[in-house]
Amino acid sequence: MNNEFLDKFARNDVVIKTGNIVIDMKKDKLIIAGPCAIESYEQLLDTALFVKKSGANVLRGGAFKPRTYPESFQGLGDEGLKILKQVKQEVKIPVITEIMDVRDLEKIIEAADIIQIGSRNMQNFTLLKEVGNQEKPVLLKRGLSATIKEWIGAAEYIANEGNTKIIMCERGIRTFSDYTRNTLDLSAVPIIKKETGLPIVVDPSHSTGIRYLVKPMSLAAIASGADGLMIEVHPHPEEALSDGTQSLNFEEFSTLMESIQKI
Amino acid sequence: MNNEFLDKFARNDVVIKTGNIVIDMKKDKLIIAGPCAIESYEQLLDTALFVKKSGANVLRGGAFKPRTYPESFQGLGDEGLKILKQVKQEVKIPVITEIMDVRDLEKIIEAADIIQIGSRNMQNFTLLKEVGNQEKPVLLKRGLSATIKEWIGAAEYIANEGNTKIIMCERGIRTFSDYTRNTLDLSAVPIIKKETGLPIVVDPSHSTGIRYLVKPMSLAAIASGADGLMIEVHPHPEEALSDGTQSLNFEEFSTLMESIQKI
Amino acid sequence: MNNEFLDKFARNDVVIKTGNIVIDMKKDKLIIAGPCAIESYEQLLDTALFVKKSGANVLRGGAFKPRTYPESFQGLGDEGLKILKQVKQEVKIPVITEIMDVRDLEKIIEAADIIQIGSRNMQNFTLLKEVGNQEKPVLLKRGLSATIKEWIGAAEYIANEGNTKIIMCERGIRTFSDYTRNTLDLSAVPIIKKETGLPIVVDPSHSTGIRYLVKPMSLAAIASGADGLMIEVHPHPEEALSDGTQSLNFEEFSTLMESIQKI
Amino acid sequence: MNNEFLDKFARNDVVIKTGNIVIDMKKDKLIIAGPCAIESYEQLLDTALFVKKSGANVLRGGAFKPRTYPESFQGLGDEGLKILKQVKQEVKIPVITEIMDVRDLEKIIEAADIIQIGSRNMQNFTLLKEVGNQEKPVLLKRGLSATIKEWIGAAEYIANEGNTKIIMCERGIRTFSDYTRNTLDLSAVPIIKKETGLPIVVDPSHSTGIRYLVKPMSLAAIASGADGLMIEVHPHPEEALSDGTQSLNFEEFSTLMESIQKI
Repeated sequence: MNNEFLDKFARNDVVIKTGNIVIDMKKDKLIIAGPCAIESYEQLLDTALFVKKSGANVLRGGAFKPRTYPESFQGLGDEGLKILKQVKQEVKIPVITEIMDVRDLEKIIEAADIIQIGSRNMQNFTLLKEVGNQEKPVLLKRGLSATIKEWIGAAEYIANEGNTKIIMCERGIRTFSDYTRNTLDLSAVPIIKKETGLPIVVDPSHSTGIRYLVKPMSLAAIASGADGLMIEVHPHPEEALSDGTQSLNFEEFSTLMESIQKI
Repeated sequence: MNNEFLDKFARNDVVIKTGNIVIDMKKDKLIIAGPCAIESYEQLLDTALFVKKSGANVLRGGAFKPRTYPESFQGLGDEGLKILKQVKQEVKIPVITEIMDVRDLEKIIEAADIIQIGSRNMQNFTLLKEVGNQEKPVLLKRGLSATIKEWIGAAEYIANEGNTKIIMCERGIRTFSDYTRNTLDLSAVPIIKKETGLPIVVDPSHSTGIRYLVKPMSLAAIASGADGLMIEVHPHPEEALSDGTQSLNFEEFSTLMESIQKI
Repeated sequence: MNNEFLDKFARNDVVIKTGNIVIDMKKDKLIIAGPCAIESYEQLLDTALFVKKSGANVLRGGAFKPRTYPESFQGLGDEGLKILKQVKQEVKIPVITEIMDVRDLEKIIEAADIIQIGSRNMQNFTLLKEVGNQEKPVLLKRGLSATIKEWIGAAEYIANEGNTKIIMCERGIRTFSDYTRNTLDLSAVPIIKKETGLPIVVDPSHSTGIRYLVKPMSLAAIASGADGLMIEVHPHPEEALSDGTQSLNFEEFSTLMESIQKI
Repeated sequence: MNNEFLDKFARNDVVIKTGNIVIDMKKDKLIIAGPCAIESYEQLLDTALFVKKSGANVLRGGAFKPRTYPESFQGLGDEGLKILKQVKQEVKIPVITEIMDVRDLEKIIEAADIIQIGSRNMQNFTLLKEVGNQEKPVLLKRGLSATIKEWIGAAEYIANEGNTKIIMCERGIRTFSDYTRNTLDLSAVPIIKKETGLPIVVDPSHSTGIRYLVKPMSLAAIASGADGLMIEVHPHPEEALSDGTQSLNFEEFSTLMESIQKI
């Protein structure tokens, strides 16, 4: 790890601004919630209104979805981005969405307040350099089998281009363990904070893949020192076009937020 | 998994009794603390007095140590058990120690209030059956690469012989991740509770192998619903004959206990 | 790793002798074949006659079986050992069987020409010491998630007691990969030979868990320098009481042996 | 897995043509050799001449290198491509090089006879679609922790766009095992052939990361049915700018090729 970058990370404060909303990660927890994929205007609007009311401060919604097979639902694409912008304006909530293709950078910057780099692209160095060359904060998910050093190396690629507004996101690693979809490695929280000084949030939805584990893992994440959470919420998880088994419905999300506020 | 055993697990209450001390795991958190290996009477006595005062309710101390190489320190053996019994009587604290050999069962039962099955022996079915045939509570550590089902299968071997006073212990699993000694899988806490109803404690010392991670992982474990912790404490970690890098000194343990009581 | 043991390993020649049959592993490939579990006299006799005729020089057959759940078939036990001895005498073929309990050592020594330590017991140090204290050759399977160093450490426990007639057995390691039962790590073959000088055989049956992979992995093992193979063969794999999906039938084993002899 | 694609894969014959050189993978083994990174004209020319003479039929050489940290040597870029084209013409040998950025596609197509998708980009779906939209054969390396199904899914993304000239490349997976750089999963060879009918080559250099393991793993790969090998060769491995510890020198490569021809 390169000390020059570590110094930059440590000095930098990640602040998300949109309109007159300001989230300063040195003080505020980042609670990102919303559907895995944007499916319709109604779906996203309902979710945005509900999660904001319950205490989330960022809306997630995927327009471009990385899927294992080409025949799976790939997201609504440009139509999804349009919905995202519309809902953002109506609900007044900052939004995050994933970038998969460097050629989409312009339109993603225009739509999103935070740009997400997904696990599969953690070492897509081309993409890392491009998001490092613009000014929006970047949420960098840990690769499926990335070591801590490799993950920090990926953050260095972004910082190296000038953008140090980086939020790390632990989302589970791939292991032999087959009960959960991935193995949530919460030790990454104190490690990343010590090694880089960067803020780190935890995704209990993708890491476990199982609804009943989202709440206890969210509480554990906060207790371990996480700067926020990224949670899948869907009005009707059983009808979701992707990741339904791990999405919370509105009531479950509301209950979770109450529990978190108690800690 | 066998429903008959699951029913037994669920009905059973794990209670540790020694003299007039009673720990009922339906109500009380189990805070196990002490050195990895018993090194001397003074070392164990000092540690026992301190951890009890700080809030631990069980003393750990290994007499027989499973070590990767035959030339490593193997524990004090019978001499260690003698020290353990002496300290237990003087300090009035229940004790836990590991069994490695079925032929040691008699003397381990005589010395210990909880019998520990280590990770390497999680599928030593001979040993599981023997500890299932006696009445002392058994702490069953998860194997290095045991799936949830295999771990529960091991508990069934114990229960099958009649002893359902089983405490599960998550101690990290083996993965590619190389910053920590193992990867602590906290999702095991809610999973074991749901699938078996058995109490489960977490070992943040072995799972991480790094001192500064013990506190955040302890807090996370409690937040995830764990019924207790198992923590290595040594008067002088830098001089420990085994596992020094992950042992807390007295001051660190005391600070940790204060943090836990706040949750 | 301890140089003293490595020197012992290197100087030692593993020779299996029974009656006037001699297998010298410095010259001869060890082809172990037979059922996972001994089910009946007829089953073992038929298999023994066939595998010997096809070119195997050791018969395998489990009397005590380590199984994940207590309700699974645990092997015929003492009755299995009796069948093993009978078939060995009639067919005139050396036999290997697994030991799980130190208290069974006497009778296993009496029945077997090679004593097998299974993966789950690779770090059952009590058992390792006991098989190190007798004179029969020991086949030491690699643990499910054992590193090369830990595996060699286990061999040192045996050698430390005086017995250096150790045969290492690579049988697949536990990884995220879910198509096969385990991941066969063939690099272990040249590594063990270089680091210890001990002979090493490969078990393509347990490592893959799938019948059609046994032949290509056997050929690959021999090409990588393995000193032998350990293959599950059953007269009627579809009726086997354990591990049927990975057992070869007689015809498949015969075809495999022909392919091996061509290399 | 989608049967439509599997049918396409199975019907298709991967043929590499350059000038009047034709490699038909239904009949010919693909022996790819050369340096990890192109460092200079002399380095590549010397290597090309030697590996061709020794029996390789494709030259490898990276111009754009994916490296964990931004401060590591990133390849010569366009200058590297220029050297590659020059050496290709002089030595009359087909060449393979890696693509990392969709925007480089034109120039990679112009320079290379086979386009390589590296492990880190196995699920860069944008890139997969683009190489599926052109006609050069594609070598698709398995991701660091890709399951067999995910790897085939990636091949489907390419085939879905029309290009079924896909060569799969097993290059080791990420496991706990720490002696080697990765764990070579040779079972992937017969599995990929059965499940897709696509040709598959093995990279014994990256998978092991250790020079002395390249030869035994190459022999094992061929014995398991691999359609070829991809081997790092460098005139002076000890001076290589990347991956020196796993590169063969000329003499070692020559010896390896002789051994392979014997099988």
